[in-house]
Amino acid sequence: MNWIQAARAEKMNPSVIREILKVTEKPGMISFAGGLPSPKTFPIDAFAAACATVLATDGEGALQYAASEGYAPLREWVAASLPWDVDPAQVLITTGSQQALDLIAKVLIDKNSKVLVETPTYLGALQAFTPMEPQFVSVTSDAQGIDIADLQAKAKDARFLYVLPNFQNPTGNSMSEARRGELSTAAAQTGLPIVEDNPYGDLWFDQPPPLPLTARNPDGCIYMGSFSKTLAPGLRLGFLVAPRLLYPKLLQAKQAADLHTPSFNQRMVAEVLKGNFLDRHVPTIRALYKSQRDAMLAALGQHLAGSGVSWNTPEGGMFLWLKLPQGMNAVDLLPDAVERNVAYVPGAAFYADAPQHNTLRLSFVTASVDQINIGSAALADVFKANLKG
Amino acid sequence: MNWIQAARAEKMNPSVIREILKVTEKPGMISFAGGLPSPKTFPIDAFAAACATVLATDGEGALQYAASEGYAPLREWVAASLPWDVDPAQVLITTGSQQALDLIAKVLIDKNSKVLVETPTYLGALQAFTPMEPQFVSVTSDAQGIDIADLQAKAKDARFLYVLPNFQNPTGNSMSEARRGELSTAAAQTGLPIVEDNPYGDLWFDQPPPLPLTARNPDGCIYMGSFSKTLAPGLRLGFLVAPRLLYPKLLQAKQAADLHTPSFNQRMVAEVLKGNFLDRHVPTIRALYKSQRDAMLAALGQHLAGSGVSWNTPEGGMFLWLKLPQGMNAVDLLPDAVERNVAYVPGAAFYADAPQHNTLRLSFVTASVDQINIGSAALADVFKANLKG
Repeated sequence: MNWIQAARAEKMNPSVIREILKVTEKPGMISFAGGLPSPKTFPIDAFAAACATVLATDGEGALQYAASEGYAPLREWVAASLPWDVDPAQVLITTGSQQALDLIAKVLIDKNSKVLVETPTYLGALQAFTPMEPQFVSVTSDAQGIDIADLQAKAKDARFLYVLPNFQNPTGNSMSEARRGELSTAAAQTGLPIVEDNPYGDLWFDQPPPLPLTARNPDGCIYMGSFSKTLAPGLRLGFLVAPRLLYPKLLQAKQAADLHTPSFNQRMVAEVLKGNFLDRHVPTIRALYKSQRDAMLAALGQHLAGSGVSWNTPEGGMFLWLKLPQGMNAVDLLPDAVERNVAYVPGAAFYADAPQHNTLRLSFVTASVDQINIGSAALADVFKANLKG
Repeated sequence: MNWIQAARAEKMNPSVIREILKVTEKPGMISFAGGLPSPKTFPIDAFAAACATVLATDGEGALQYAASEGYAPLREWVAASLPWDVDPAQVLITTGSQQALDLIAKVLIDKNSKVLVETPTYLGALQAFTPMEPQFVSVTSDAQGIDIADLQAKAKDARFLYVLPNFQNPTGNSMSEARRGELSTAAAQTGLPIVEDNPYGDLWFDQPPPLPLTARNPDGCIYMGSFSKTLAPGLRLGFLVAPRLLYPKLLQAKQAADLHTPSFNQRMVAEVLKGNFLDRHVPTIRALYKSQRDAMLAALGQHLAGSGVSWNTPEGGMFLWLKLPQGMNAVDLLPDAVERNVAYVPGAAFYADAPQHNTLRLSFVTASVDQINIGSAALADVFKANLKG
């Protein structure tokens, strides 16, 4: 039969991470590769109680077709949870925040549209945007966030800047208050729309991150959030908050994409959220992840101090970013690491262009402290064995 | 801010049905408009038991990120349930079968690609395909299915034919065995791929429909199915079965769209399906819907015999198709019907081009038999009051 694929299909590629994750399913493997929240943080009992309540009190509603916008009480919760004035009518519930990226791509990206991204940036966003065939342009970024002068040089005719200001995937870096202010001002001056993705913002360790960019200019930003990191990813529940001007088209894209996010899941989460559940639950996640970050920092320090390998100190989130000395290639070293039963994601996959091959992403949330100690020591052995000179 | 929407966004429109459904939320309204399964058919107790079991035995798996292909036991169930040789590796679990349409559009439709559809066809498919900007071409259809000669005249360079052979939405018509054979032969001869959508096939009243088109030529078809009509739509659980050649790109599109369909929902349904649950459950849906179809046919016959209004006798599914005399317009009569507390969907929305304004779709599954009797009488009054001459 004459199956002819669309031109965009040529550009779609399997996720590198996905392929690496297959390796990590090997028994005994210590994985720093995936972005999987610790299953210890899943409030299974609360979900079980919520399922029973929802089905007993609103079973028909939970199992029926529903509005594409989402379940009204959940939209109201989202609006009320955000630190600026949000009308629930601007909240669109999505099937994970990944779907928000897909909807944004459909509504805002034409073929060859310029889309600005951080250096490096979230691989899943590159994958979600790619089918609409944008031209990605990387904006230089440092530990404080994106470089404003570089942004201004590249902003002309860009459809939007995609940015994760809090505990970014992949680096774990957060954008400073000063940089947010500069970015917000520069975006307003150049008329550059911002797509702000904030799945990790609640996972701060010592102090909350600065205000979102969207709070500084709500009409100039689309904001994306998720319940994947504070409750559980397996329910696929995220949301976006859009300017009134854009909401109708995003809603139509949502309707065409999957009609609506599962009614049952929305009610289940709305039920769990009652009584300020997250105020008690999220601090336990923060404490766990902070202890695991500390373990990884300590182990890396013990085994790699003075080696020429460097890394950052994330103040929240799930990831740490490691740089090998120039000339080393994290892709080349991965088989040696896997041989030692430890896995990571080479950083190259997170660059829209000009990958830095000496970088890699380590997740400190999936593995236990014992595994972090063992795995970090093994990784350090691999790196040291391959250091030049 | 310079929000610039993609050209495709211009072509995206809100669903007519959606707007009508808002009207039907008025208290006392009898709705023949929506495609909502009767909530009486939702196996709430079975779902409650399944939730409890899944969370007790596999809570961490149900709440964690998962493979984009879907939950292996559910893929195996789907493969085993189909009446031809299907490898579970060809099954992709989707967030409702609506998502399968979105993925197919991304992988197979370029701007201006010719896509063949029935006359009339499923509005949700038109909405899902539209963002990829195809050129829709309607193939003449009658009560037996699509017209083969017209298909052959239009097949050249078409990317695929989209068809619902069983109890079609909107007409309720099924494609006959003879026509399926002719279509399968014609498609093979012209190399025309087929996208076969089968959400209603299990809802037969007296005898099962003929074999799917895909069973006759698995490499030439993508098959789509759903749990929305046999279990519940609010879980958003559907699937597609794709030729091996196409599966990888559909999978990549799925991964980019929402990473995966909720792990929890997939396990919940896999749990409910154990012990041949559907073999006991689906006959109760068939019996209910048949009694409601019979009530609608009887009421229409009582009130409209000899009026020049005609309708079909669906042998399954959820919908009945009604034709007013030529010159009458179902859109114009809708306000009168709503005034009488009864709603339907004017047929024009289901035509890719050249709408027949004298047609309308009636669902016989959402309203009770009493409501069907009252609503049909009211509708008949509206039609008769507007008959010409």
